[in-house]
Amino acid sequence: MAKSPEEEHPQKAFGWAARDSSGVLSPFHFSRRENGEEDVTIKILYCGVCHSDLHIVKNDWGFTRFPVVPGHEIVGVVTKTGKNVKKFKVGDRVGVGVLVGSCKKCDSCQQDLENYCPQVIFTYNSLYHDGTITYGGYSDAVVVEECYVLRFPDNLPPDAGLGGLGHVAVKFGKAFGLRVTVISTSPKKEDEAINRLGADAFLVSSDPAKMKVAMGTMDYIIDTVSAVHALAPLLGLLKLNGKLVTLGLPDKPLELPIFPLVLGRKLVGGSDVGGMKETQEMLDFCAEHGITADIELIRMENVNMAMERLAKSDVRYRFVIDVANSLSQ
Amino acid sequence: MAKSPEEEHPQKAFGWAARDSSGVLSPFHFSRRENGEEDVTIKILYCGVCHSDLHIVKNDWGFTRFPVVPGHEIVGVVTKTGKNVKKFKVGDRVGVGVLVGSCKKCDSCQQDLENYCPQVIFTYNSLYHDGTITYGGYSDAVVVEECYVLRFPDNLPPDAGLGGLGHVAVKFGKAFGLRVTVISTSPKKEDEAINRLGADAFLVSSDPAKMKVAMGTMDYIIDTVSAVHALAPLLGLLKLNGKLVTLGLPDKPLELPIFPLVLGRKLVGGSDVGGMKETQEMLDFCAEHGITADIELIRMENVNMAMERLAKSDVRYRFVIDVANSLSQ
Repeated sequence: MAKSPEEEHPQKAFGWAARDSSGVLSPFHFSRRENGEEDVTIKILYCGVCHSDLHIVKNDWGFTRFPVVPGHEIVGVVTKTGKNVKKFKVGDRVGVGVLVGSCKKCDSCQQDLENYCPQVIFTYNSLYHDGTITYGGYSDAVVVEECYVLRFPDNLPPDAGLGGLGHVAVKFGKAFGLRVTVISTSPKKEDEAINRLGADAFLVSSDPAKMKVAMGTMDYIIDTVSAVHALAPLLGLLKLNGKLVTLGLPDKPLELPIFPLVLGRKLVGGSDVGGMKETQEMLDFCAEHGITADIELIRMENVNMAMERLAKSDVRYRFVIDVANSLSQ
Repeated sequence: MAKSPEEEHPQKAFGWAARDSSGVLSPFHFSRRENGEEDVTIKILYCGVCHSDLHIVKNDWGFTRFPVVPGHEIVGVVTKTGKNVKKFKVGDRVGVGVLVGSCKKCDSCQQDLENYCPQVIFTYNSLYHDGTITYGGYSDAVVVEECYVLRFPDNLPPDAGLGGLGHVAVKFGKAFGLRVTVISTSPKKEDEAINRLGADAFLVSSDPAKMKVAMGTMDYIIDTVSAVHALAPLLGLLKLNGKLVTLGLPDKPLELPIFPLVLGRKLVGGSDVGGMKETQEMLDFCAEHGITADIELIRMENVNMAMERLAKSDVRYRFVIDVANSLSQ
């Protein structure tokens, strides 16, 4: 008989888990594996609340393994290192993202794109090499193989280092030296986009007159909309050779008009999270350019309310759980 | 009152035109402008029959200006040059493609992408600078500004130099040193694809077992299908970072599944005909690598039968009209 989550590994662990598709999170005793020769054990300080955490606890995608401890935006401090660990020492501040394992052999792994490895192991709700289920960062500690751990730059605030796709994209765009326009269905976001995030312009996608004026003026569009939406008006905004890259994951196909692609040599592409190398470069870039996420820090016991507000997009822009200061048994 | 096509210009011309959306072509007397200082006059030897010729004579796209003289795959010989013409002399063999004019000032023109100029003038069925309608290559001669005329390499056979997208793409792929797979709905094309065109492999897209085996094996797909069709199975054939470029123009949007784009960092793009520089490079590449189209040479008086057969895809792979030897008044 399989051992219980509390007994299957030697290191005791504690966090909050959802037990069923109600999605309600509550205290959960489980365990972590012994720190292996390539592993580091990390005391978790902060963990971001991603929209995919909400999808998983509600079993929206149909593959949740309950009980599930979500959380894949982890910042913490190293408390133990295996004898072969080279990059980290006890006391280092580190990060863990969405993945904690991959095959290391396939084309994707060889190209530092572990995130596209067919055998990728996610930080939670995945089967680890030993057949046990992975548990995420809504917990006190985690054991991770060193190559899936990120150095966390000293001058980056640990609570505001992760998450919130759209608003962080604006900050990256400005740091890259680009002119950035925020496109939104809601005119109410204009002040926020311009004055809080530093965007150069704001465009209401539901305003046909303004959309018409903006036709053919953009080089790239990053599309973070997760719901089914019309691509045609967005493609119209692009110049010749313009590129729309979608990061959202609508669960139904979108309508793709072919004429603008062919007549304007445009393209529609997609991109997933980065590999370990890309992610480290991203963190270092953030440290260098002072890019942080705008967050709302919460205590673990308020995580269910945070999930409810997240479902209504009532957050500017990311909930982060103050794990170390609020998780108590 | 506007002058008749026969009287509006000083040089007499003769060709075949469609008078209405029956699409039937018949002899037609018209005229060509005086050869200007930047112009060359070309005696037409051969003209390819493109599927878009068929669309235009039938007014399928709703913007045909009747009477219309189709033909934008022209090979001929220079008979007259304006005093400022530098690239050509009388007797040179030359080509004319889909465009005969552009603004020369916009970003696209500056990048040698005249084909994407918002004021592009097409070889037929367009308004020229002087307000008269352009007439194409199903005719004895044409006057074209030198910068829209292509040098036609000496060692390229003039009748087999143009047209037939899919089958020529296979030949280019092989000349580029690629492994080429022909994907078709029809198992009957296998022998032809492999033995006549030199493809390395053949895949029947309606065979789920074979499509499954081929999943994730391709770097690029050139999609020449003009009808509405499913993108999802084609995207499944692509590797990580794979690219599908569509050249066909389905008149309705296609269904674009987003998961494969994001999870496989794939893209769907489009591409139109080339600019003058690209087109010249293409012709030179064909001459260097001995790439020619497989054609069926016809006489002008059989063009209506050719159109009927083209509508049923009954041609391997391109009809070419032997204009100089069959056009008589």
